[in-house]
Amino acid sequence: MKALVTVMPKTGVLDPQGKAIGHALAGLGFAGVGEVRAGKVIELELAETDPAKARAAAEEMARKLLANTVIESFSVSLA
Amino acid sequence: MKALVTVMPKTGVLDPQGKAIGHALAGLGFAGVGEVRAGKVIELELAETDPAKARAAAEEMARKLLANTVIESFSVSLA
Repeated sequence: MKALVTVMPKTGVLDPQGKAIGHALAGLGFAGVGEVRAGKVIELELAETDPAKARAAAEEMARKLLANTVIESFSVSLA
Repeated sequence: MKALVTVMPKTGVLDPQGKAIGHALAGLGFAGVGEVRAGKVIELELAETDPAKARAAAEEMARKLLANTVIESFSVSLA
């Protein structure tokens, strides 16, 4: 079963990568682009077949390794 | 209107970041983790309100800046 962990900087946390992307888009002539935030996504292939257990495992992995919960929030979706 | 651009390494392309995460998870004692792939997600706040035009704009941005289409594939979702 596949789990997708999306990690984004928390609201209010400075996001220099997002800012840089926003500036680059403006420089390329893209208008009407407001805030840009950059995060990461980790696709995990899990042996677990029970959705609830797979979700719990992915959340545990996110808390322990994938996300820095001081400055980042994460969400897990199963596919 | 918010657009979410997800950029992942194409199948077959070496993903050292994903491999490193996989090894780290194994080192932390997480069992049953198969392939791990790491990508990025860019959240764009667009002034455009028409969903079709917003999607087209986000795809254009992905092709021109956000993704390296030689080694990465991208998908756009609107929120």
